[in-house]
Amino acid sequence: MNTVTVHTEPAYSVRIGPGLLSKLGELLPSVLPGCKIAVITDDVVSRLYGPAAEASLKEAGYPVSTFVFPNGEAQKTLSTFGAMLDFLSEEGFDRSDGILALGGGVTGDMAGFAAACYLRGIRFVQVPTTFLAAVDSSVGGKTGINLNRGKNLAGAFYQPQAVFCDTDVLHTLPDEIYDEGTAEAVKCAVIGDPTLFGLLGKASFSEEEVIRRCVALKASVVEQDEKEEGLRAILNFGHTLGHAIEVCSNYTLRHGRAVALGMIAVTRAAEKSGFAEKGTLDALRQVLEARKLWGSVNEDPERLLAAVGADKKKRKDRLTLVLPRRIGACEPVSMNLDEAKTLLRAGLE
Amino acid sequence: MNTVTVHTEPAYSVRIGPGLLSKLGELLPSVLPGCKIAVITDDVVSRLYGPAAEASLKEAGYPVSTFVFPNGEAQKTLSTFGAMLDFLSEEGFDRSDGILALGGGVTGDMAGFAAACYLRGIRFVQVPTTFLAAVDSSVGGKTGINLNRGKNLAGAFYQPQAVFCDTDVLHTLPDEIYDEGTAEAVKCAVIGDPTLFGLLGKASFSEEEVIRRCVALKASVVEQDEKEEGLRAILNFGHTLGHAIEVCSNYTLRHGRAVALGMIAVTRAAEKSGFAEKGTLDALRQVLEARKLWGSVNEDPERLLAAVGADKKKRKDRLTLVLPRRIGACEPVSMNLDEAKTLLRAGLE
Repeated sequence: MNTVTVHTEPAYSVRIGPGLLSKLGELLPSVLPGCKIAVITDDVVSRLYGPAAEASLKEAGYPVSTFVFPNGEAQKTLSTFGAMLDFLSEEGFDRSDGILALGGGVTGDMAGFAAACYLRGIRFVQVPTTFLAAVDSSVGGKTGINLNRGKNLAGAFYQPQAVFCDTDVLHTLPDEIYDEGTAEAVKCAVIGDPTLFGLLGKASFSEEEVIRRCVALKASVVEQDEKEEGLRAILNFGHTLGHAIEVCSNYTLRHGRAVALGMIAVTRAAEKSGFAEKGTLDALRQVLEARKLWGSVNEDPERLLAAVGADKKKRKDRLTLVLPRRIGACEPVSMNLDEAKTLLRAGLE
Repeated sequence: MNTVTVHTEPAYSVRIGPGLLSKLGELLPSVLPGCKIAVITDDVVSRLYGPAAEASLKEAGYPVSTFVFPNGEAQKTLSTFGAMLDFLSEEGFDRSDGILALGGGVTGDMAGFAAACYLRGIRFVQVPTTFLAAVDSSVGGKTGINLNRGKNLAGAFYQPQAVFCDTDVLHTLPDEIYDEGTAEAVKCAVIGDPTLFGLLGKASFSEEEVIRRCVALKASVVEQDEKEEGLRAILNFGHTLGHAIEVCSNYTLRHGRAVALGMIAVTRAAEKSGFAEKGTLDALRQVLEARKLWGSVNEDPERLLAAVGADKKKRKDRLTLVLPRRIGACEPVSMNLDEAKTLLRAGLE
């Protein structure tokens, strides 16, 4: 088992390894001793992993209540969030009790937001069950829900007490869901880990090692900028355009695939403009092809650029695009909206 | 004009004086320069003070959008909160923009919670229009909404950029709403300000001075314990029982009056048990009678004590009751639920 410590306020550990799900009862007492646990999960994950997780918790003496909601991004609403809060109060949870988020990013984001808000904050742990959640959304303290106008428009910065990534569960994921994690891992590699980039270009890789490297990279960034005021922007490499691609596809394209397309376009734009070293796009192409994530954008460029203009990270008419210098080194660049559109247009050609 | 600085993270100022409402446009640039402002208010306050506030803001060049919801505690729901968030996103608010909460505690709590959550946090200022909100709920960073099971069960600790208390608006308040502020001021006096206690026993008093003293007391407590982990419990003097009285009356009894009854019962209990000096209850009676807030509880004691057992601040089977030693000195005392019930039962006799 690997452990990465994230030095936020408060600090917490991410533990990565096989078989953790059925060891939750042994692992939890060090971070959430002697309290009631609300397992928050969706119906798909509940069927697959709920029994093992709950059995382990109960065996360790935890009183467990389980809240199950329907799987899918469409459920990431104020209404589901409200149902979680009502559930916690109906089950008599108090400030000494805790939440265990069992699932992918949707579950982690919503359960984390419920933990942040219920009684103005109770403790929670993340047990990611997708590759994407393991490498990305379980670290960084971003929690939230979608509003009618867009993704993650409401939420809180709120850190878990611990994260437990069971690498065994990754083997049951359908390909298109597994690939979302790979895309996010490629993002981490391009931002700051050339060794990871090398691993991801190989025929096969150790997921435990990939998760460990991604979490370590993300932790080092988040530690320096917990509230997303500066440096943390770097984690948005490929995401500004990626989100726009997701929105314009009406979410028929999955997040990871959209981010892959976003990384391709922004890397092409950076290389064309002379910001990125020659060969950066070719290197990215090699790895993304190895992972079957290479592709091109089918959406109308002007429609995409209009969606970029509605990005929630925009302040006034400026936004920050993350551009690669080379594999392993990216920089956030603040520019006005028109400059960003001109640059991205070149990447979409 | 009086100014009290609250040294939380971040620090902010509470400004108290006449005529501030029509000076908002001059006061705001020092804390929220050059951004869009969402005025969040209820229909009653909007009619009385909306035009003056908005005119002042617009004259100073602020683009203003106004969100109005129906007056009353019954509106303090997830649904109204969601409507605020949707409003902010529909109006295109970004992280550089701000909220101005214009109203009483319900408005301040909900608008503050919306500010805490929208885009994971935007800036806001409080402009309390009730005496209670001025002395109490606009300082301390507690924001939130009610759930089906109880008051303020969801929310966030989130500090405003500034608070502007216009003392002129207090003169338009109906008596029963004005009295809520007086009850809260008496609470502050008993907790830690014998001079304030003296002022409140006089035939008339300066509201500006009373607000200044209450805010200063509350600020000094909150600065030492922003997240309510210990000392801050002292601000709950009269509130554990007061909340139970409110709930059992189905909210027909207003918060201030319920807190007054709570203070009476807990002071009687403390004096009976020997914890409080003899004469404490008599002194409290004198001031509360001068303010027409003396009274006795009509609810069935056992029903009240059952409601106390459901208090959200309870942890496991322990809760903290705040007991007076004398006027100007209270102490939080942690005890188990049975001890608390026995003590309070004596106070209700």
